[in-house]
Amino acid sequence: MTIGLTIIDMQNDFVLPEAPACIPNAHATIPAIRLALDFFRRESLPIFHIIRNYRPDGSDIELTRRAAFLAGPKYALPGTRGAEIVSELAPLPGEHVIVKPRFSAFMGTEFDLVLRRCGVTHLAICGTQYPNCIRATAFDSISYGYPTTILVDATSAATQEVALGNIRDMQAIGIECIPFQEFAQKIRPANPAA
Amino acid sequence: MTIGLTIIDMQNDFVLPEAPACIPNAHATIPAIRLALDFFRRESLPIFHIIRNYRPDGSDIELTRRAAFLAGPKYALPGTRGAEIVSELAPLPGEHVIVKPRFSAFMGTEFDLVLRRCGVTHLAICGTQYPNCIRATAFDSISYGYPTTILVDATSAATQEVALGNIRDMQAIGIECIPFQEFAQKIRPANPAA
Repeated sequence: MTIGLTIIDMQNDFVLPEAPACIPNAHATIPAIRLALDFFRRESLPIFHIIRNYRPDGSDIELTRRAAFLAGPKYALPGTRGAEIVSELAPLPGEHVIVKPRFSAFMGTEFDLVLRRCGVTHLAICGTQYPNCIRATAFDSISYGYPTTILVDATSAATQEVALGNIRDMQAIGIECIPFQEFAQKIRPANPAA
Repeated sequence: MTIGLTIIDMQNDFVLPEAPACIPNAHATIPAIRLALDFFRRESLPIFHIIRNYRPDGSDIELTRRAAFLAGPKYALPGTRGAEIVSELAPLPGEHVIVKPRFSAFMGTEFDLVLRRCGVTHLAICGTQYPNCIRATAFDSISYGYPTTILVDATSAATQEVALGNIRDMQAIGIECIPFQEFAQKIRPANPAA
């Protein structure tokens, strides 16, 4: 069993409190995500940073968001500081960064191909936000045949009500939803993360 | 603008009250779905019946459901009456029937290719059930660039709470969620469906 860690959309423009597309509660998950990241690094397990980039002409943003994006302020523009992953979670050499053009990390990307090449058999997912990119990725993960865990204290939504509703639906199709420490304890019972 | 009607998983095994995989509330939506179906037939707009089939060896069911499926009772087996669309909504010649192997009608199917060939520019979705196949299809529909409407009185979930939570999340990404009559009124203001 090889578990891959998938961190979704923890970019400055979605996470920093004054960012143009800030998701409330995302910033507060940075410490828990960092614990997960450190655990996977110590265990030499594969790590995937999934990010979003939007072309400034709006050609790769969902139609339903395009008008507001073009009217500005724009966000996640390639090459800008806003599109970078927050400094606390910056990728190290050897970790995979995958740009996704839609909600799911699997749609229109090399993610599934890279997971197979890395021999990943299970996915642990965290980041932001529950109803959109987290859930779409988790449903696709199950659809592609990867047993899937959501690290609930390392994942965020704009409100607790939205988070809980999505956890309920994901659990109903067999997605495991547990806090990071419980996950770490299951993977390494004798030597859990600090 | 060409709107396609997409009816999801209204098969005997998911809909009939004593079926092995009955989704509560699905049967109650048959009259509303039938109104939508009649409207699209009268308007000569394209109609897509999306169904699920499972091989009896469990090779195409989600891993998280496989053990229970193999232990039985099985459902949606190709060629059985249980896998057929409920009689009230049976497809007519010229309507498209697409078998999907996962939650989303787009995953691993010819659906997007057929929509393009038919010149479909917008999708109206109904059927069952909200948190899984309806939502996964609706998110993929937006991702593929089709403005998307959920016909809320023609769509079901096991509970009203689950339905409302999913409607909230879908509206948040720009999916229109309205009852069929409101939809019909928008498409044909002068001559709405009865």
